[in-house]
Amino acid sequence: MKIQLALDRMSIPEAVTMARLVHPYIDWIEIGTSLIKEYGMVSVETMKREFPEKVIVADMKTFDNAKYEFELCFKAGADVATVMGAASPVTIQLCMDTAERFGGQTMIDLLNTSPEQQYELAQYKSAIHCLHVSKDEQEHHGHKHSGGEQGHTIMNSGRLQLAIAGGITQETLPGLLQLKPSVIIVGSAITKDSDPALAAHNIKQWIEEQKERGNL
Amino acid sequence: MKIQLALDRMSIPEAVTMARLVHPYIDWIEIGTSLIKEYGMVSVETMKREFPEKVIVADMKTFDNAKYEFELCFKAGADVATVMGAASPVTIQLCMDTAERFGGQTMIDLLNTSPEQQYELAQYKSAIHCLHVSKDEQEHHGHKHSGGEQGHTIMNSGRLQLAIAGGITQETLPGLLQLKPSVIIVGSAITKDSDPALAAHNIKQWIEEQKERGNL
Repeated sequence: MKIQLALDRMSIPEAVTMARLVHPYIDWIEIGTSLIKEYGMVSVETMKREFPEKVIVADMKTFDNAKYEFELCFKAGADVATVMGAASPVTIQLCMDTAERFGGQTMIDLLNTSPEQQYELAQYKSAIHCLHVSKDEQEHHGHKHSGGEQGHTIMNSGRLQLAIAGGITQETLPGLLQLKPSVIIVGSAITKDSDPALAAHNIKQWIEEQKERGNL
Repeated sequence: MKIQLALDRMSIPEAVTMARLVHPYIDWIEIGTSLIKEYGMVSVETMKREFPEKVIVADMKTFDNAKYEFELCFKAGADVATVMGAASPVTIQLCMDTAERFGGQTMIDLLNTSPEQQYELAQYKSAIHCLHVSKDEQEHHGHKHSGGEQGHTIMNSGRLQLAIAGGITQETLPGLLQLKPSVIIVGSAITKDSDPALAAHNIKQWIEEQKERGNL
Protein backbone atom coordinates (compact mmCIF):
# COMPACT_ATOMS: atom_id res chain seq x y z
CA MET A 1 0.00 0.00 0.00
CA LYS A 2 1.55 3.22 -1.19
CA ILE A 3 1.10 6.60 0.48
CA GLN A 4 0.34 9.39 -1.99
CA LEU A 5 0.97 12.85 -0.55
CA ALA A 6 -1.58 15.29 -2.01
CA LEU A 7 -0.29 18.85 -2.32
CA ASP A 8 -3.05 21.41 -2.75
CA ARG A 9 -3.82 25.05 -2.02
CA MET A 10 -0.19 26.09 -1.73
CA SER A 11 2.58 27.63 -3.82
CA ILE A 12 5.16 25.55 -5.69
CA PRO A 13 7.94 26.46 -3.20
CA GLU A 14 5.64 25.46 -0.34
CA ALA A 15 4.92 22.17 -2.10
CA VAL A 16 8.64 21.48 -2.50
CA THR A 17 9.31 22.32 1.15
CA MET A 18 6.48 20.06 2.32
CA ALA A 19 7.59 17.15 0.16
CA ARG A 20 11.19 17.53 1.42
CA LEU A 21 9.95 17.37 5.01
CA VAL A 22 8.04 14.13 4.59
CA HIS A 23 9.70 12.37 1.65
CA PRO A 24 11.18 9.45 3.66
CA TYR A 25 7.67 8.37 4.67
CA ILE A 26 5.68 8.77 1.45
CA ASP A 27 5.81 6.95 -1.88
CA TRP A 28 3.94 9.03 -4.42
CA ILE A 29 3.66 12.82 -4.73
CA GLU A 30 0.44 14.30 -6.11
CA ILE A 31 0.47 17.73 -7.68
CA GLY A 32 -3.06 18.78 -6.76
CA THR A 33 -5.54 20.20 -9.26
CA SER A 34 -5.34 23.58 -7.54
CA LEU A 35 -1.57 23.78 -8.12
CA ILE A 36 -1.96 22.79 -11.77
CA LYS A 37 -4.71 25.36 -12.40
CA GLU A 38 -2.92 28.10 -10.49
CA TYR A 39 0.61 27.60 -11.86
CA GLY A 40 0.33 25.26 -14.83
CA MET A 41 2.63 22.44 -15.85
CA VAL A 42 5.66 24.07 -14.24
CA SER A 43 4.26 22.64 -10.98
CA VAL A 44 4.61 19.10 -12.34
CA GLU A 45 8.02 19.79 -13.92
CA THR A 46 9.36 21.24 -10.67
CA MET A 47 8.24 18.35 -8.51
CA LYS A 48 9.67 15.75 -10.91
CA ARG A 49 12.98 17.62 -11.04
CA GLU A 50 13.14 17.89 -7.24
CA PHE A 51 11.94 14.35 -6.55
CA PRO A 52 12.97 12.20 -9.54
CA GLU A 53 12.84 9.02 -7.44
CA LYS A 54 9.16 9.47 -6.51
CA VAL A 55 6.10 8.55 -8.57
CA ILE A 56 4.64 11.89 -9.62
CA VAL A 57 0.84 12.08 -9.95
CA ALA A 58 -0.63 14.99 -11.91
CA ASP A 59 -4.18 15.45 -10.60
CA MET A 60 -5.32 16.83 -13.93
CA LYS A 61 -9.00 15.85 -13.53
CA THR A 62 -9.31 15.67 -17.31
CA PHE A 63 -12.88 15.83 -18.60
CA ASP A 64 -12.23 16.55 -22.29
CA ASN A 65 -9.30 17.14 -24.65
CA ALA A 66 -7.80 13.96 -23.25
CA LYS A 67 -4.85 13.37 -25.55
CA TYR A 68 -3.63 16.96 -25.35
CA GLU A 69 -3.98 17.19 -21.56
CA PHE A 70 -2.39 13.81 -20.85
CA GLU A 71 0.49 14.58 -23.20
CA LEU A 72 1.08 17.81 -21.25
CA CYS A 73 1.33 15.79 -18.03
CA PHE A 74 3.66 13.06 -19.23
CA LYS A 75 5.90 15.48 -21.11
CA ALA A 76 6.16 17.49 -17.88
CA GLY A 77 7.41 14.40 -16.07
CA ALA A 78 4.29 12.89 -14.53
CA ASP A 79 4.16 9.13 -14.04
CA VAL A 80 0.40 9.05 -13.41
CA ALA A 81 -2.38 11.44 -14.52
CA THR A 82 -6.02 11.57 -13.49
CA VAL A 83 -9.24 11.60 -15.54
CA MET A 84 -12.77 11.98 -14.20
CA GLY A 85 -14.83 8.78 -14.31
CA ALA A 86 -17.84 11.04 -14.98
CA ALA A 87 -16.34 12.04 -18.34
CA SER A 88 -17.37 10.57 -21.67
CA PRO A 89 -16.15 6.99 -22.41
CA VAL A 90 -14.20 8.25 -25.44
CA THR A 91 -12.29 10.66 -23.20
CA ILE A 92 -11.36 7.92 -20.75
CA GLN A 93 -10.23 5.60 -23.55
CA LEU A 94 -8.04 8.40 -24.98
CA CYS A 95 -6.47 8.91 -21.56
CA MET A 96 -5.73 5.19 -21.29
CA ASP A 97 -4.19 5.15 -24.77
CA THR A 98 -2.08 8.26 -24.17
CA ALA A 99 -0.80 7.04 -20.79
CA GLU A 100 0.16 3.70 -22.32
CA ARG A 101 2.00 5.40 -25.15
CA PHE A 102 4.14 7.29 -22.60
CA GLY A 103 4.62 4.28 -20.34
CA GLY A 104 2.54 6.08 -17.71
CA GLN A 105 -0.59 5.15 -15.82
CA THR A 106 -4.13 6.52 -15.65
CA MET A 107 -5.92 7.12 -12.38
CA ILE A 108 -9.71 7.27 -12.81
CA ASP A 109 -11.29 9.56 -10.23
CA LEU A 110 -14.72 8.13 -9.34
CA LEU A 111 -15.97 11.37 -7.81
CA ASN A 112 -19.74 11.66 -8.35
CA THR A 113 -20.00 8.58 -10.55
CA SER A 114 -22.95 6.21 -10.38
CA PRO A 115 -22.56 2.49 -9.55
CA GLU A 116 -23.35 1.84 -13.24
CA GLN A 117 -20.51 4.12 -14.36
CA GLN A 118 -18.13 2.46 -11.87
CA TYR A 119 -19.11 -0.93 -13.24
CA GLU A 120 -18.42 0.20 -16.82
CA LEU A 121 -15.09 1.69 -15.78
CA ALA A 122 -14.01 -1.59 -14.18
CA GLN A 123 -13.09 -2.75 -17.72
CA TYR A 124 -9.92 -0.64 -17.38
CA LYS A 125 -7.86 -3.17 -15.44
CA SER A 126 -4.54 -1.34 -15.84
CA ALA A 127 -5.90 1.92 -14.40
CA ILE A 128 -6.00 2.88 -10.74
CA HIS A 129 -9.59 3.46 -9.63
CA CYS A 130 -9.85 6.24 -7.07
CA LEU A 131 -12.72 6.26 -4.59
CA HIS A 132 -12.92 9.90 -3.68
CA VAL A 133 -14.88 11.95 -1.15
CA SER A 134 -14.60 15.49 -2.48
CA LYS A 135 -13.11 18.42 -0.60
CA ASP A 136 -16.46 20.19 -0.99
CA GLU A 137 -18.37 17.31 0.60
CA GLN A 138 -15.83 17.04 3.42
CA GLU A 139 -15.94 20.73 4.20
CA HIS A 140 -19.68 21.25 3.85
CA HIS A 141 -21.20 17.93 4.85
CA GLY A 142 -18.47 16.58 7.09
CA HIS A 143 -18.11 13.36 5.05
CA LYS A 144 -14.94 11.35 5.33
CA HIS A 145 -13.97 7.88 4.22
CA SER A 146 -14.91 5.17 6.67
CA GLY A 147 -14.76 2.08 4.47
CA GLY A 148 -18.47 1.71 3.82
CA GLU A 149 -18.78 3.76 0.65
CA GLN A 150 -20.78 2.80 -2.38
CA GLY A 151 -18.84 1.20 -5.12
CA HIS A 152 -16.32 -0.74 -3.11
CA THR A 153 -18.12 -4.04 -3.64
CA ILE A 154 -17.89 -3.69 -7.40
CA MET A 155 -14.33 -2.51 -7.11
CA ASN A 156 -13.14 -5.26 -4.86
CA SER A 157 -14.82 -8.05 -6.75
CA GLY A 158 -13.03 -6.93 -9.90
CA ARG A 159 -9.65 -7.04 -8.18
CA LEU A 160 -8.83 -3.58 -9.46
CA GLN A 161 -6.03 -1.38 -8.23
CA LEU A 162 -7.80 0.99 -5.84
CA ALA A 163 -6.84 4.37 -4.49
CA ILE A 164 -8.77 6.08 -1.72
CA ALA A 165 -8.90 9.83 -1.23
CA GLY A 166 -10.77 12.29 0.90
CA GLY A 167 -10.11 13.32 4.44
CA ILE A 168 -8.05 10.23 5.31
CA THR A 169 -6.47 10.44 8.77
CA GLN A 170 -4.61 8.03 11.01
CA GLU A 171 -7.94 7.44 12.76
CA THR A 172 -9.91 6.50 9.63
CA LEU A 173 -7.18 4.30 8.14
CA PRO A 174 -8.13 1.04 9.93
CA GLY A 175 -11.66 1.20 8.48
CA LEU A 176 -10.22 1.36 4.96
CA LEU A 177 -8.24 -1.87 5.24
CA GLN A 178 -11.16 -4.00 3.98
CA LEU A 179 -10.98 -2.18 0.64
CA LYS A 180 -7.41 -3.40 0.19
CA PRO A 181 -6.32 -0.18 -1.52
CA SER A 182 -3.10 -0.05 -3.53
CA VAL A 183 -2.78 3.65 -2.76
CA ILE A 184 -4.05 5.85 0.06
CA ILE A 185 -4.08 9.54 -0.71
CA VAL A 186 -3.38 11.78 2.26
CA GLY A 187 -3.39 15.56 2.15
CA SER A 188 -4.23 17.77 5.10
CA ALA A 189 -3.72 15.02 7.72
CA ILE A 190 -0.04 15.45 6.86
CA THR A 191 0.29 18.94 5.39
CA LYS A 192 -1.83 20.69 8.04
CA ASP A 193 -0.31 18.83 10.97
CA SER A 194 1.93 20.86 13.25
CA ASP A 195 4.58 18.19 12.59
CA PRO A 196 4.05 16.89 9.04
CA ALA A 197 7.06 14.56 9.16
CA LEU A 198 5.81 12.90 12.34
CA ALA A 199 2.29 12.57 10.94
CA ALA A 200 3.61 10.94 7.76
CA HIS A 201 5.98 8.74 9.79
CA ASN A 202 3.11 7.50 11.95
CA ILE A 203 0.97 6.59 8.93
CA LYS A 204 3.91 4.82 7.31
CA GLN A 205 4.65 2.94 10.53
CA TRP A 206 1.03 1.84 10.90
CA ILE A 207 1.08 0.44 7.36
CA GLU A 208 4.33 -1.45 8.06
CA GLU A 209 2.74 -2.96 11.16
CA GLN A 210 -0.28 -4.10 9.18
CA LYS A 211 2.01 -5.72 6.63
CA GLU A 212 3.87 -7.60 9.37
CA ARG A 213 0.54 -8.83 10.72
CA GLY A 214 -0.51 -10.03 7.29
CA ASN A 215 -3.38 -7.57 7.02
CA LEU A 216 -2.06 -6.06 3.81
CA MET B 1 -26.46 36.43 -29.03
CA LYS B 2 -22.85 36.82 -27.96
CA ILE B 3 -19.89 35.23 -29.69
CA GLN B 4 -17.43 33.63 -27.27
CA LEU B 5 -14.00 33.03 -28.80
CA ALA B 6 -12.52 29.84 -27.33
CA LEU B 7 -8.72 29.87 -27.13
CA ASP B 8 -7.23 26.43 -26.67
CA ARG B 9 -4.09 24.45 -27.45
CA MET B 10 -1.88 27.51 -27.93
CA SER B 11 0.58 29.65 -25.95
CA ILE B 12 -0.47 32.83 -24.13
CA PRO B 13 1.25 35.08 -26.74
CA GLU B 14 -0.57 33.18 -29.50
CA ALA B 15 -3.85 33.65 -27.63
CA VAL B 16 -3.24 37.40 -27.32
CA THR B 17 -2.35 37.66 -31.02
CA MET B 18 -5.47 35.72 -32.05
CA ALA B 19 -7.76 37.81 -29.85
CA ARG B 20 -6.23 41.02 -31.25
CA LEU B 21 -6.93 39.83 -34.78
CA VAL B 22 -10.61 39.11 -34.22
CA HIS B 23 -11.62 41.35 -31.31
CA PRO B 24 -13.94 43.65 -33.28
CA TYR B 25 -16.17 40.70 -34.14
CA ILE B 26 -16.34 38.80 -30.87
CA ASP B 27 -17.89 39.60 -27.50
CA TRP B 28 -16.47 37.18 -24.95
CA ILE B 29 -12.99 35.67 -24.72
CA GLU B 30 -12.61 32.19 -23.27
CA ILE B 31 -9.32 31.10 -21.79
CA GLY B 32 -9.58 27.40 -22.60
CA THR B 33 -8.97 24.65 -20.07
CA SER B 34 -5.77 23.66 -21.87
CA LEU B 35 -4.30 27.16 -21.43
CA ILE B 36 -5.23 27.21 -17.75
CA LYS B 37 -3.73 23.78 -17.08
CA GLU B 38 -0.61 24.49 -19.13
CA TYR B 39 0.16 28.01 -17.87
CA GLY B 40 -2.04 28.61 -14.82
CA MET B 41 -3.88 31.75 -13.81
CA VAL B 42 -1.39 34.02 -15.58
CA SER B 43 -3.32 33.10 -18.74
CA VAL B 44 -6.49 34.66 -17.30
CA GLU B 45 -4.63 37.67 -15.87
CA THR B 46 -2.93 38.37 -19.19
CA MET B 47 -6.12 38.23 -21.25
CA LYS B 48 -8.00 40.50 -18.84
CA ARG B 49 -5.13 42.99 -18.87
CA GLU B 50 -4.94 42.97 -22.67
CA PHE B 51 -8.71 43.01 -23.23
CA PRO B 52 -10.29 44.77 -20.24
CA GLU B 53 -13.40 45.66 -22.25
CA LYS B 54 -14.23 42.02 -23.05
CA VAL B 55 -16.06 39.52 -20.88
CA ILE B 56 -13.36 37.03 -19.84
CA VAL B 57 -14.46 33.42 -19.39
CA ALA B 58 -12.15 31.09 -17.46
CA ASP B 59 -12.95 27.57 -18.66
CA MET B 60 -11.91 26.12 -15.33
CA LYS B 61 -14.09 22.97 -15.57
CA THR B 62 -14.22 22.84 -11.78
CA PHE B 63 -15.21 19.44 -10.36
CA ASP B 64 -14.18 19.91 -6.72
CA ASN B 65 -12.57 22.53 -4.47
CA ALA B 66 -15.10 24.98 -5.85
CA LYS B 67 -14.59 28.00 -3.63
CA TYR B 68 -10.82 27.94 -3.98
CA GLU B 69 -10.84 27.44 -7.74
CA PHE B 70 -13.52 30.05 -8.43
CA GLU B 71 -11.74 32.57 -6.21
CA LEU B 72 -8.57 31.99 -8.25
CA CYS B 73 -10.51 32.83 -11.43
CA PHE B 74 -12.25 35.97 -10.24
CA LYS B 75 -9.14 37.30 -8.50
CA ALA B 76 -7.29 36.80 -11.79
CA GLY B 77 -9.85 38.97 -13.58
CA ALA B 78 -12.38 36.49 -14.96
CA ASP B 79 -15.98 37.62 -15.35
CA VAL B 80 -17.32 34.09 -15.85
CA ALA B 81 -15.96 30.72 -14.69
CA THR B 82 -17.11 27.21 -15.60
CA VAL B 83 -18.08 24.24 -13.45
CA MET B 84 -18.96 20.75 -14.67
CA GLY B 85 -22.65 19.88 -14.41
CA ALA B 86 -21.51 16.32 -13.69
CA ALA B 87 -19.96 17.48 -10.41
CA SER B 88 -21.56 17.08 -7.01
CA PRO B 89 -24.49 19.44 -6.21
CA VAL B 90 -22.55 20.92 -3.28
CA THR B 91 -19.71 21.86 -5.66
CA ILE B 92 -22.07 23.59 -8.07
CA GLN B 93 -23.77 25.50 -5.25
CA LEU B 94 -20.36 26.65 -3.97
CA CYS B 95 -19.47 27.89 -7.46
CA MET B 96 -22.74 29.82 -7.66
CA ASP B 97 -22.14 31.37 -4.23
CA THR B 98 -18.52 32.30 -4.98
CA ALA B 99 -19.37 33.83 -8.37
CA GLU B 100 -22.13 35.89 -6.78
CA ARG B 101 -19.79 37.12 -4.07
CA PHE B 102 -17.40 38.43 -6.73
CA GLY B 103 -20.16 39.85 -8.95
CA GLY B 104 -19.26 37.22 -11.55
CA GLN B 105 -21.25 34.54 -13.31
CA THR B 106 -21.15 30.74 -13.39
CA MET B 107 -21.30 28.77 -16.61
CA ILE B 108 -22.42 25.17 -16.05
CA ASP B 109 -20.89 22.85 -18.62
CA LEU B 110 -23.41 20.08 -19.36
CA LEU B 111 -20.84 17.76 -20.93
CA ASN B 112 -21.81 14.14 -20.27
CA THR B 113 -24.72 14.99 -17.97
CA SER B 114 -27.94 13.00 -17.98
CA PRO B 115 -31.34 14.60 -18.72
CA GLU B 116 -32.08 14.16 -15.00
CA GLN B 117 -28.95 16.09 -14.04
CA GLN B 118 -29.80 18.83 -16.56
CA TYR B 119 -33.27 19.08 -15.08
CA GLU B 120 -31.85 19.45 -11.57
CA LEU B 121 -29.36 22.07 -12.75
CA ALA B 122 -32.16 24.14 -14.30
CA GLN B 123 -32.79 25.47 -10.77
CA TYR B 124 -29.77 27.75 -11.28
CA LYS B 125 -31.53 30.50 -13.22
CA SER B 126 -28.69 33.01 -13.00
CA ALA B 127 -26.13 30.59 -14.47
CA ILE B 128 -25.38 30.08 -18.14
CA HIS B 129 -26.08 26.48 -19.15
CA CYS B 130 -23.63 25.23 -21.75
CA LEU B 131 -24.67 22.46 -24.14
CA HIS B 132 -21.35 21.02 -25.12
CA VAL B 133 -20.18 18.44 -27.64
CA SER B 134 -16.71 17.55 -26.42
CA LYS B 135 -13.51 17.91 -28.41
CA ASP B 136 -12.95 14.18 -27.95
CA GLU B 137 -16.37 13.31 -29.40
CA GLN B 138 -15.86 15.71 -32.31
CA GLU B 139 -12.44 14.34 -33.15
CA HIS B 140 -13.18 10.66 -32.69
CA HIS B 141 -16.85 10.30 -33.55
CA GLY B 142 -17.30 13.28 -35.87
CA HIS B 143 -20.12 14.74 -33.74
CA LYS B 144 -20.98 18.39 -34.09
CA HIS B 145 -23.86 20.51 -32.94
CA SER B 146 -26.83 20.46 -35.29
CA GLY B 147 -29.58 21.71 -33.00
CA GLY B 148 -31.12 18.33 -32.24
CA GLU B 149 -29.19 17.44 -29.09
CA GLN B 150 -30.65 15.94 -25.97
CA GLY B 151 -31.44 18.37 -23.27
CA HIS B 152 -32.47 21.37 -25.30
CA THR B 153 -36.17 20.79 -24.66
CA ILE B 154 -35.64 21.00 -20.92
CA MET B 155 -33.36 23.96 -21.38
CA ASN B 156 -35.60 25.93 -23.63
CA SER B 157 -38.74 25.33 -21.61
CA GLY B 158 -36.99 26.72 -18.55
CA ARG B 159 -36.03 29.92 -20.38
CA LEU B 160 -32.48 29.56 -19.19
CA GLN B 161 -29.49 31.41 -20.56
CA LEU B 162 -27.95 28.90 -22.93
CA ALA B 163 -24.49 28.64 -24.41
CA ILE B 164 -23.62 26.17 -27.15
CA ALA B 165 -20.15 24.78 -27.71
CA GLY B 166 -18.54 22.12 -29.82
CA GLY B 167 -17.46 22.33 -33.43
CA ILE B 168 -19.72 25.28 -34.31
CA THR B 169 -19.10 26.61 -37.82
CA GLN B 170 -20.84 29.12 -40.06
CA GLU B 171 -22.58 26.14 -41.68
CA THR B 172 -23.99 24.66 -38.46
CA LEU B 173 -25.09 28.02 -37.00
CA PRO B 174 -28.54 28.17 -38.67
CA GLY B 175 -29.53 24.83 -37.12
CA LEU B 176 -28.77 26.22 -33.65
CA LEU B 177 -31.16 29.17 -33.92
CA GLN B 178 -34.10 27.16 -32.53
CA LEU B 179 -32.21 26.80 -29.24
CA LYS B 180 -32.15 30.60 -28.88
CA PRO B 181 -28.69 30.58 -27.29
CA SER B 182 -27.42 33.59 -25.39
CA VAL B 183 -23.85 32.64 -26.25
CA ILE B 184 -22.31 30.65 -29.07
CA ILE B 185 -18.82 29.39 -28.39
CA VAL B 186 -16.57 29.23 -31.43
CA GLY B 187 -13.02 27.93 -31.42
CA SER B 188 -11.32 26.33 -34.39
CA ALA B 189 -13.82 27.67 -36.96
CA ILE B 190 -12.16 31.03 -36.23
CA THR B 191 -8.72 30.19 -34.87
CA LYS B 192 -7.87 27.53 -37.47
CA ASP B 193 -9.23 29.52 -40.42
CA SER B 194 -6.63 30.89 -42.84
CA ASP B 195 -8.23 34.30 -42.21
CA PRO B 196 -9.50 34.32 -38.61
CA ALA B 197 -10.69 37.95 -38.78
CA LEU B 198 -12.81 37.25 -41.86
CA ALA B 199 -14.23 34.07 -40.32
CA ALA B 200 -15.20 35.96 -37.15
CA HIS B 201 -16.56 38.86 -39.21
CA ASN B 202 -18.76 36.52 -41.24
CA ILE B 203 -20.24 34.90 -38.13
CA LYS B 204 -20.85 38.30 -36.57
CA GLN B 205 -22.50 39.56 -39.77
CA TRP B 206 -24.76 36.51 -39.98
CA ILE B 207 -25.93 37.12 -36.41
CA GLU B 208 -26.62 40.79 -37.16
CA GLU B 209 -28.71 39.74 -40.17
CA GLN B 210 -30.71 37.32 -38.06
CA LYS B 211 -31.37 40.07 -35.55
CA GLU B 212 -32.63 42.39 -38.30
CA ARG B 213 -34.97 39.64 -39.53
CA GLY B 214 -36.31 39.14 -36.04
CA ASN B 215 -34.95 35.61 -35.76
CA LEU B 216 -33.01 36.43 -32.60
